[in-house]
Amino acid sequence: MSALLRGRREFLEISRIAGRFPRATAPILPADTAEVSVWCSNDYLGMGQAPAVLEAVKKAVDENGAGSGGSRNISGTNRYHMQLEVELAALHRKDAALLFSTGYTTNSGALPILAGRFPGTVVFSDEKNHASIIDGIRQSRAEKRIFRHNDADHLAELLAAADPDRPKMIVAESIYSMDGDVAPLAEIADLARRYHALTYLDEVHAVGMYGPRGAGVAAQQGLENEFDVIMGTLAKGFGTIGGYIAGSAPLVEAVRMFSPYFIFTTSLPPAMAAGALAAVRHLTTSETEREILHRNAAFTHQLLDDRRIPYVSAMSHIVSVFVGDEAKCRTASSILLHRHGIYVQPIDAPSVRPGHAVLRATPSATHQEAEIVRFADALDDIWKELDLPRATAGRLVAEMTE
Amino acid sequence: MSALLRGRREFLEISRIAGRFPRATAPILPADTAEVSVWCSNDYLGMGQAPAVLEAVKKAVDENGAGSGGSRNISGTNRYHMQLEVELAALHRKDAALLFSTGYTTNSGALPILAGRFPGTVVFSDEKNHASIIDGIRQSRAEKRIFRHNDADHLAELLAAADPDRPKMIVAESIYSMDGDVAPLAEIADLARRYHALTYLDEVHAVGMYGPRGAGVAAQQGLENEFDVIMGTLAKGFGTIGGYIAGSAPLVEAVRMFSPYFIFTTSLPPAMAAGALAAVRHLTTSETEREILHRNAAFTHQLLDDRRIPYVSAMSHIVSVFVGDEAKCRTASSILLHRHGIYVQPIDAPSVRPGHAVLRATPSATHQEAEIVRFADALDDIWKELDLPRATAGRLVAEMTE
Ligand SMILES: Cc1ncc(COP(=O)(O)O)c(C=O)c1O
Ligand SMILES: Cc1ncc(COP(=O)(O)O)c(C=O)c1O
Repeated sequence: MSALLRGRREFLEISRIAGRFPRATAPILPADTAEVSVWCSNDYLGMGQAPAVLEAVKKAVDENGAGSGGSRNISGTNRYHMQLEVELAALHRKDAALLFSTGYTTNSGALPILAGRFPGTVVFSDEKNHASIIDGIRQSRAEKRIFRHNDADHLAELLAAADPDRPKMIVAESIYSMDGDVAPLAEIADLARRYHALTYLDEVHAVGMYGPRGAGVAAQQGLENEFDVIMGTLAKGFGTIGGYIAGSAPLVEAVRMFSPYFIFTTSLPPAMAAGALAAVRHLTTSETEREILHRNAAFTHQLLDDRRIPYVSAMSHIVSVFVGDEAKCRTASSILLHRHGIYVQPIDAPSVRPGHAVLRATPSATHQEAEIVRFADALDDIWKELDLPRATAGRLVAEMTE
Repeated sequence: MSALLRGRREFLEISRIAGRFPRATAPILPADTAEVSVWCSNDYLGMGQAPAVLEAVKKAVDENGAGSGGSRNISGTNRYHMQLEVELAALHRKDAALLFSTGYTTNSGALPILAGRFPGTVVFSDEKNHASIIDGIRQSRAEKRIFRHNDADHLAELLAAADPDRPKMIVAESIYSMDGDVAPLAEIADLARRYHALTYLDEVHAVGMYGPRGAGVAAQQGLENEFDVIMGTLAKGFGTIGGYIAGSAPLVEAVRMFSPYFIFTTSLPPAMAAGALAAVRHLTTSETEREILHRNAAFTHQLLDDRRIPYVSAMSHIVSVFVGDEAKCRTASSILLHRHGIYVQPIDAPSVRPGHAVLRATPSATHQEAEIVRFADALDDIWKELDLPRATAGRLVAEMTE
């Protein structure tokens, strides 16, 4: 029984090959075919191997060493932290930005402070918000109302039903990572204005990839001023590690002063801040990676349409191939890996609803067209072999997964 | 008014100079004296500039790129994560180890799972435990009893008073970071055995620095088998970033399966895991850095004794110089920086009790003897200038700060 078939307990060891993404070595495979094509990385733009990023990391290692050696307040604030915060604030056209160790701790660290600023705050949260958002809201101990996924009408109802005198906060993601669907940002912004709600937008799967200069989906829609706090990660589109918020000076300052996830921990390695800075800067001027990313995603979706392979993703950069049955999804993933050298991790509950397992595929800006054709063809073979249901009208309608 | 005098809100930007620690550039100073000696870094052994560590980081950047590109379960498990977990388990003579993004998230991630494993668990926690431990216990929602700092008798009382049928867990640090004092590990271990309590020991300020192979204080005292979980950081003695637990296979597996802080976040950059691996391996064989560290700490304490400068630290590697008054402590720090080029962050409430402000100084293995003399002499000048109270019997008795 292969490690993969033992299920979720075993993590597949792969080592990506810098300069040759999406290729990686995978010791689980027999030595002569031990290279795989990674189809489930969130390094969507290949910034993790961009020469400018790697040079920046290595230069900072030579200059400042490996770790920062301290928390931000106690010897751990390096020039690259400062420059990166300035750059991120500018990217989102906000007063200030604040770095955290990860995107996860950004949400679990910032949300309790922001939701806790005004006593009695009611938080309105999309039902599909990420674990880190749920965690942050839970830690705030604020009262929480969950609105149906991307359902602005339901959000409007909940806002209308709430005590008009209580402070309000709306928390959503711009692009949801499992289905790649986009939040109704304009409607959320309207409602926020109407009900004087603070808005917090997680753009983890959008920064670097969408909008002018890679500033995200709110910026793409001209709505960046409507969202008080933009939250992002440095570990996906920007190819390194860390998370951040950008917002007005008082909001960012409150988080900086009071969040234990920011205060009581060693700051990011200067070299990682330097690498992230290089990635952010590169992507503010270069459109190339974004163009290839979206072209590759559209091409993948089109090949799936041609082969009537069902998927639940909207036309974003994420391609969630719908399998449904958990066991079959794991088998499909295993065949992809062992027969085709293609690595896509199967996703099942609780990340998606039971019986709605998907192969969440991420054709990055580093995938070649021929590789995308091989992926679609491999799926087609597997669909025959496992007798999986075909799509009737190409894309599975959203209802099927709701 | 200098940025430093504006108080805690401003972080001092310094950039440590790899190869010349503890030297760093500090743009706040006029250009011609813009180098400082850092006296408050937790990179105690200088591993953040060790050639073997920097080479390992850069080699892994060349091999595998900047970030990992995924969570551990979804494309983000690299060979260096696997090797580092094996190495850390071996360091602590445990079955298994598990990496987290930081020491903070190790505590906030692992403790809720461990304290939540058996319903009704009562957690006994030292009153001076770190913010991340308090956070983790709070998130577990387990009932909590606080014992007086390092007071095994009080712990015994609380254990005796608790329902004998309820599962118990004891959480302590081995070395406390503010005073550098050591927990009564043998007594805690005895009590744990007597009351069948699970033991969780935070060795963040000890791993790399104490014990055979740098395995920590429990190992130094021959007690490593008495502690079920040893928790450590990679960001202090090991000079990089990240945290970990080491323990029995079922305990570690439970955390791996269920902690959202482990699951729903991008894994450590392979290059940082590679750097940490090099640091851990180096320190399992080399005694040099530990010897210099402890010699430097003893020398610093001795020079303070000679000058009757009060300190509250036990004879560990941490030297907490006692000032008391918060404003004077900040002034002392500012004079050290601006006149002597010595950077020590002042520490006041809530990190220490109000009116018990300290200069928490960390003479690392990279400090030279002449530099230590300059530090003691600078303090002596400041003690005169600010008319600060002298120690009567060298070391301030513990009572003064309790
Ligand atoms: C929506 C969302 N927010 C936050 C995170 C956490 O980001 P990071 O991987 O940087 O911790 C993720 C993914 O992991 C995510 O999907
Ligand atoms: C006792 C203790 N535990 C945990 C941590 C957190 O470690 P890290 O800096 O790796 O997040 C610290 C210091 O920051 C600490 O002093």
